[in-house]
Amino acid sequence: VRRANPEELVASARGGDRLAVARLLSLAERGGAPAVEVGRLVYPLGGRAYTVGITGAPGAGKSTLTDRLLQRVRARGEEVAVLAIDPSSPKSGGAFLGDRVRMQDHATDGGVFVRSMASRGHLGGLSLATPEAIRVLDAAGFPLVFVETVGVGQVEIEIAGAADTTVVVMNPGWGDSIQANKAGLIEVADVFVINRADRPGVEEARRDLQWAIDQTAADGDAGLAEWKPPIVLASATQGQGIDEVLAAIADHRSHVEGNGELERRRAERLGDELEEIVVRRLERRAHELVGDQRFDRLRTDMLERRTDPYSAAEEVLAALEK
Amino acid sequence: VRRANPEELVASARGGDRLAVARLLSLAERGGAPAVEVGRLVYPLGGRAYTVGITGAPGAGKSTLTDRLLQRVRARGEEVAVLAIDPSSPKSGGAFLGDRVRMQDHATDGGVFVRSMASRGHLGGLSLATPEAIRVLDAAGFPLVFVETVGVGQVEIEIAGAADTTVVVMNPGWGDSIQANKAGLIEVADVFVINRADRPGVEEARRDLQWAIDQTAADGDAGLAEWKPPIVLASATQGQGIDEVLAAIADHRSHVEGNGELERRRAERLGDELEEIVVRRLERRAHELVGDQRFDRLRTDMLERRTDPYSAAEEVLAALEK
Repeated sequence: VRRANPEELVASARGGDRLAVARLLSLAERGGAPAVEVGRLVYPLGGRAYTVGITGAPGAGKSTLTDRLLQRVRARGEEVAVLAIDPSSPKSGGAFLGDRVRMQDHATDGGVFVRSMASRGHLGGLSLATPEAIRVLDAAGFPLVFVETVGVGQVEIEIAGAADTTVVVMNPGWGDSIQANKAGLIEVADVFVINRADRPGVEEARRDLQWAIDQTAADGDAGLAEWKPPIVLASATQGQGIDEVLAAIADHRSHVEGNGELERRRAERLGDELEEIVVRRLERRAHELVGDQRFDRLRTDMLERRTDPYSAAEEVLAALEK
Repeated sequence: VRRANPEELVASARGGDRLAVARLLSLAERGGAPAVEVGRLVYPLGGRAYTVGITGAPGAGKSTLTDRLLQRVRARGEEVAVLAIDPSSPKSGGAFLGDRVRMQDHATDGGVFVRSMASRGHLGGLSLATPEAIRVLDAAGFPLVFVETVGVGQVEIEIAGAADTTVVVMNPGWGDSIQANKAGLIEVADVFVINRADRPGVEEARRDLQWAIDQTAADGDAGLAEWKPPIVLASATQGQGIDEVLAAIADHRSHVEGNGELERRRAERLGDELEEIVVRRLERRAHELVGDQRFDRLRTDMLERRTDPYSAAEEVLAALEK
């Protein structure tokens, strides 16, 4: 098989070729010059996809909920793509998808595209690879993209929080661990879902969460003055509350589309991404500099405690400026 | 109370004042100029502490195991400090310690020092704050420092992996999720502990893990040719296997001290840290640059798809070089 170049792949992807989409995502994920080329090609073609981030603690039932949301969206005849960021996976892409039950359901449906991305090995890089992957899906014509992440690491929470609408999934009866988590999650959540709402402790969970939301609002969180995230009860395994979750997402979408907040958020994200790209390039330069044999002496001096890392850093930075 | 300056705090900490140690850790953790000042003061005073990283999935029983190890070390009359990196905690330091059972046990023992550090809000910063905190404890005279992290996020795994000896804690019967994790954890592990070894599935877990270690070794992992991590069975809650864990740590320590590996690892970590400090400073500069009103136009151009983030980044970098 002849290797298609990025330009051909983009054309095929826009013509509905799902394999071309998968290949572009692999290029975007791998980084380096080909990723930049893909990025430059798809950037002007996008801007229509709406992104929904789905995050929450491990085991909260995010995958099952996402699957149910997919089914409902497909039943309406709309196309949809899912990026599942998997922190426990050392691999990504197609090879890993065999594990996922969802693929069994959707494998024969061309209107659904599901893709796993490994977060391991991507520290930093993931926050660039994800918007890039979203733009590939956007350019390929998917009007809706779900980005599912495990809300443990800060990178994962940030990625889900960088969506147009962010859904945070919780469970009843988790007690303190989730209490501690809330503070950080409330800031990114546009919609809360208490999944497994058939289990005991739902009312306490809802009350605690509502209290935490009100508290954050009272602390003067500017976002919460505009939009207070609703709490939706659901049982994904039993298919309950799914329409209500979609309705809450739609409400939030109307809200941010109506008041200019969507445009403002997207502009801010682009600014962050620009900064991230600049930082990665500077990092590469710093890596080259520190690896330079001119600085071998610094390492020895630090080891023998003749200098400390801060003074050493100043020497390196001075060299960078020359 | 008059605020002591860092110099006075270091002198007090070295005289055995635990409150002074706690204050220095707060300064180190908060970052900025005072952290650098503390870093410069303690750096030449250290170099004697041996660090042991303890990591593993949430709920694997790391805290209980660490507590048992502490008790055993204390029973031998040795002093020991613990840094517990808590990813779910929005706070750090003293306020959060009330939650930890261990503090009840050790609160009146001056030979033990336990400290929580929040990983939230520290993305990147944590990898600088942790070695800094270790050096404070080192300068205060603790010959042994445990660094306990939840092995979910890559930052946490890297931090535990940056210890002189790294212990990875697992449980029997976790199936696939742990399977997926192994690949990344094997590379950082010097000692494996299968905790809760009184539960069913221990033999399968041991066999699977041994297979994964052999596999990684067969793939040509250079570290594994030198040292194959032993697998220790333990039940921390029942106090079983604790001496065996300590013996495995001691074995690994003799190994790396004997063959020069310890020195090599520490030199490499110092190099990484130096690079990290340089990168953080460059990041700050990039942030200022991107925020500069000269570049407001770039954001608008990106939003309106007249330019893409990569071309925009090149403009910013060109300005940085001038």
